[in-house]
Amino acid sequence: MASKRKIAVLVGSLRKDSFNRKTATALAGLASDELALEIVEIGQLPFYSEDTEAAGAPAPWKEFRDRIRAADAVLFATPEYNRSVPGVLKNAIDVGSRPYGQSVWDGKPAAVISVSPGAIGGFGANHHLRQSLVFLNMPAMQQPEAYVGGADKLFDEAGRIVNDKTREFLQGFMKSFVSWIDMNRRK
Amino acid sequence: MASKRKIAVLVGSLRKDSFNRKTATALAGLASDELALEIVEIGQLPFYSEDTEAAGAPAPWKEFRDRIRAADAVLFATPEYNRSVPGVLKNAIDVGSRPYGQSVWDGKPAAVISVSPGAIGGFGANHHLRQSLVFLNMPAMQQPEAYVGGADKLFDEAGRIVNDKTREFLQGFMKSFVSWIDMNRRK
Amino acid sequence: MASKRKIAVLVGSLRKDSFNRKTATALAGLASDELALEIVEIGQLPFYSEDTEAAGAPAPWKEFRDRIRAADAVLFATPEYNRSVPGVLKNAIDVGSRPYGQSVWDGKPAAVISVSPGAIGGFGANHHLRQSLVFLNMPAMQQPEAYVGGADKLFDEAGRIVNDKTREFLQGFMKSFVSWIDMNRRK
Amino acid sequence: MASKRKIAVLVGSLRKDSFNRKTATALAGLASDELALEIVEIGQLPFYSEDTEAAGAPAPWKEFRDRIRAADAVLFATPEYNRSVPGVLKNAIDVGSRPYGQSVWDGKPAAVISVSPGAIGGFGANHHLRQSLVFLNMPAMQQPEAYVGGADKLFDEAGRIVNDKTREFLQGFMKSFVSWIDMNRRK
Repeated sequence: MASKRKIAVLVGSLRKDSFNRKTATALAGLASDELALEIVEIGQLPFYSEDTEAAGAPAPWKEFRDRIRAADAVLFATPEYNRSVPGVLKNAIDVGSRPYGQSVWDGKPAAVISVSPGAIGGFGANHHLRQSLVFLNMPAMQQPEAYVGGADKLFDEAGRIVNDKTREFLQGFMKSFVSWIDMNRRK
Repeated sequence: MASKRKIAVLVGSLRKDSFNRKTATALAGLASDELALEIVEIGQLPFYSEDTEAAGAPAPWKEFRDRIRAADAVLFATPEYNRSVPGVLKNAIDVGSRPYGQSVWDGKPAAVISVSPGAIGGFGANHHLRQSLVFLNMPAMQQPEAYVGGADKLFDEAGRIVNDKTREFLQGFMKSFVSWIDMNRRK
Repeated sequence: MASKRKIAVLVGSLRKDSFNRKTATALAGLASDELALEIVEIGQLPFYSEDTEAAGAPAPWKEFRDRIRAADAVLFATPEYNRSVPGVLKNAIDVGSRPYGQSVWDGKPAAVISVSPGAIGGFGANHHLRQSLVFLNMPAMQQPEAYVGGADKLFDEAGRIVNDKTREFLQGFMKSFVSWIDMNRRK
Repeated sequence: MASKRKIAVLVGSLRKDSFNRKTATALAGLASDELALEIVEIGQLPFYSEDTEAAGAPAPWKEFRDRIRAADAVLFATPEYNRSVPGVLKNAIDVGSRPYGQSVWDGKPAAVISVSPGAIGGFGANHHLRQSLVFLNMPAMQQPEAYVGGADKLFDEAGRIVNDKTREFLQGFMKSFVSWIDMNRRK
């Protein structure tokens, strides 16, 4: 029997009560027994710079890279900041992509979910992130696309999703992700 | 007689010998007497988070916001990281855009130049950045577009541009930017 | 006293009862006396091809180009097809952009409104179109962005906007466009 | 033994001597025995419109849809028009995506190659097209990305690729595409 696939979850917002963090936590609960979701923190990563790399990669970069390397796949849960990916999330992507030729992202299947209080559900962040996944050689699940709007009304005080339709959508999303991972991860 | 327009220059790379920093410095030299270009540093800015804002904006955020507020226009010089804007530059944009309703970017004319050693000249970063400028309400100069490739062969040891055609292109770029600023800055 | 600015309106859908056509018509009614909006049809344009151009531009291309040339500014009202600009609208843009060096778009101020029945309001089409405007050297109004969702509930049988908030938003949009045109059109 | 995979090739330019058509033809020659590449023409397709569909799909639409339905995978070879996908190619995508629920693209593995005489190699068209592939649920090969610049110097009079490095790159591209198809096509 196959062991659980390890999913590294990156949350694009540092806010403690972030809707994206809540979504990530809810997804961990919704996912079947086949997946183990684990949030990998990104707020502690110094900005990427080649000079810093040349002087010796800081410990938080090394730990982050090791965490991603150990994962079978990556799930990005992100808000939209100024019609694009938050700087903090983009920096994590940049840190993981280097040094040249040693990207920890290479070949790992990925899925993107964007969550926002507004109606548009983070479309701009979602697709900017997908453009990076092309370069990073991360097979990206196409459907279902996940633009979650109205996130301020989505959770109860315990962080449970209050809306049945959204819960079902997210369950289907995770089920599709399992299939996607199994088709695309390196043997 | 009009005083000089103050241009805040944001450089998307933290590398000391960055091609974008060299380009920014060269542009300051090429610009006519009508412009005063000044690089505003971004590597010291803590990641944007609403929680941090709520606890009181850190001093580097305040200083950065003041610097941008004092500028007449903004020039972005950026490499491409993973087909998009470097995290460090996107974070600076995010920091300047908040708190809600107090964005320091609002209404300031902008130009974008992307510089890379490869052939493509940072197209992906250039246009992702432009998508943010829409939301930030920064009138964006459309032409000339500036995708500067082959940047590793562009400068001599003193940081001077060795290529006549590139120098002329950049002079034209700055001249167009002066006109753009004069048409679009708030009276 | 200034004469009315002539606005060429391009509608991205050929459907007779298209929400975008209705929006364009409603905008013509909402606009102040300062603007004359006129829909320029695009469904009759043969596909752009350099071979066709070399053999002599077809009459519909010539008429279309003349119509755009005579306009002071351009308003694009577009649905989203497959997360991007409908082919028919993109073709009109391509036709107007040629032959090389004779683009009819050059320098004309532009605004974009995307309209769809879904929640997202055509974000993907809106920003893909904006990327073309950069190349076409069309100063693009940044704010207000106009993503109009729920378009199936927006009009009564006579094509009037039934929602006060949307009507006010569109009035503000047109007012901003007048200012944008006056700042950016060639003297 | 597996039969050959049938690849529908869509060429984004109607020009008879188009660089993209030459590239498509060259790729058909370079591909291993495992693939049968066949260009599916798009210049004869009437513009997509729901009204036209409701009145009965025109014969060229039906034939086009049948051709795509019969393919195992799709290869897009496209120039960049005005920083995006040519209207004629986008229209073909729109035609194939409808009527609602009967998209012929659904689930078919895809690859994108963009070819242009300029240095940038069609980056803008390449990624706009990829955004549509997300919606169309077409698993998109991420690497190698194929931005082919300098296309005016790439072929001899017989349409053969004159540059060894480019030929090898394209062979590798097709080899990766075979693996991508085998991982992602529906069983």
